Amino acid sequence: MKLLYRGKAKTVYELDKNHVIIEFRDDISAFDGKKKDVIAGKGEINARISSILFEELNRNGIPTHYIKFEEPNKIIAKRLEMIPLEVICRNIATGSLIRRFPFKDKTVLKKPIVEFCLKDDRYHDPMINEDIAYNLGISNEDEMKKMKEIILRVNDILKKFLYDKGIILVDFKLEFGKDKNNKLYVADEITPDTCRFWDRETREVMDKDRYRKDMGNVIEYYREVLRRISA
Amino acid sequence: MKLLYRGKAKTVYELDKNHVIIEFRDDISAFDGKKKDVIAGKGEINARISSILFEELNRNGIPTHYIKFEEPNKIIAKRLEMIPLEVICRNIATGSLIRRFPFKDKTVLKKPIVEFCLKDDRYHDPMINEDIAYNLGISNEDEMKKMKEIILRVNDILKKFLYDKGIILVDFKLEFGKDKNNKLYVADEITPDTCRFWDRETREVMDKDRYRKDMGNVIEYYREVLRRISA
Repeated sequence: MKLLYRGKAKTVYELDKNHVIIEFRDDISAFDGKKKDVIAGKGEINARISSILFEELNRNGIPTHYIKFEEPNKIIAKRLEMIPLEVICRNIATGSLIRRFPFKDKTVLKKPIVEFCLKDDRYHDPMINEDIAYNLGISNEDEMKKMKEIILRVNDILKKFLYDKGIILVDFKLEFGKDKNNKLYVADEITPDTCRFWDRETREVMDKDRYRKDMGNVIEYYREVLRRISA
Repeated sequence: MKLLYRGKAKTVYELDKNHVIIEFRDDISAFDGKKKDVIAGKGEINARISSILFEELNRNGIPTHYIKFEEPNKIIAKRLEMIPLEVICRNIATGSLIRRFPFKDKTVLKKPIVEFCLKDDRYHDPMINEDIAYNLGISNEDEMKKMKEIILRVNDILKKFLYDKGIILVDFKLEFGKDKNNKLYVADEITPDTCRFWDRETREVMDKDRYRKDMGNVIEYYREVLRRISA
């Protein structure tokens, strides 16, 4: 298969003119790639988690790139032109938000916060707005408004789905792609690498913050997320 | 007179219930106050430049706090509740924009960039958006949309006014205040401390970048800006 793109945790291969195969690897990294490790089994668990969450979005009418899961650690997806933005939605203030702004850690937000960041490690993924994105030739006001609407709907769907499984959706990151008609699709992945998940009862961390902060038992918590959402 | 507020370069006194006197001091600072100096005569020159530019905005129907100039270094202005945001408008990419994003220095932008930053030195005035501002209780989407409309009109007016005087308006920062009816006014100052001005023919720097970058002759260039716009 022709390699199209090798990222920090996934590899994308061409399947045919309109489809790709995305392989979830065991690589994990943080801090713009400065911290790196391999966690055996993570790729398979994340491919499975992402599949379940994309299926839930597809069922709810959200346009996503996801077509089907391929044992053990791959998905087949629509081939899209990716927009180099990270679209973030937050329900609870933590992480980079509280480092950049005067929020108290763990504040439940009055209204979800949507942020756009430029996907560019050299610049440390800076927050961007529609005027800057337009001048960089990356997106425009209308498209960013649509992405914001979609991520807010995704937030409502996943928040409810996960809460019923005992998980609080603290925040998450999406990436979007476009087909030849410029139709937007949620693409990339939805996993503990790209979301913050807390246990509904204990507030225990069940996501990549365990790796970032050296809290231990990373794979055990990823597996527990998969177990709960599979139930 | 009762002191209301002492900032890094201006002091605000109460004149009466609805008015303030703003004194422009000779203090100059950069890098969140880490670099500080006194430049004799700067306060008077900036009070005069600000007055001329606010008068130009008032003439063009922009609501501003400016009422009148008071010899030698003061203005009388409406007393407003200030919004702790720095609203920035850019016509040419330079300064913090090119440090944060992959723009080539001195690129003329396809469309002006408007950015909102939280006025908070502890956090180094981070770029903010309407969701974050709302959750911090600072502003909201509707108000920020109005400020954006106003700063784009201000940009058109000042760009033309200054160009005719031999000055390119590279970028500038505004602050806004609200009266008791929540009506928005352009407030604060418009000076070489808060704008980037380049000579129309030579592209020479005529603003605070001369101080930031130790280019020398700071007061001479400020005085030249005043001389040109007074003509």
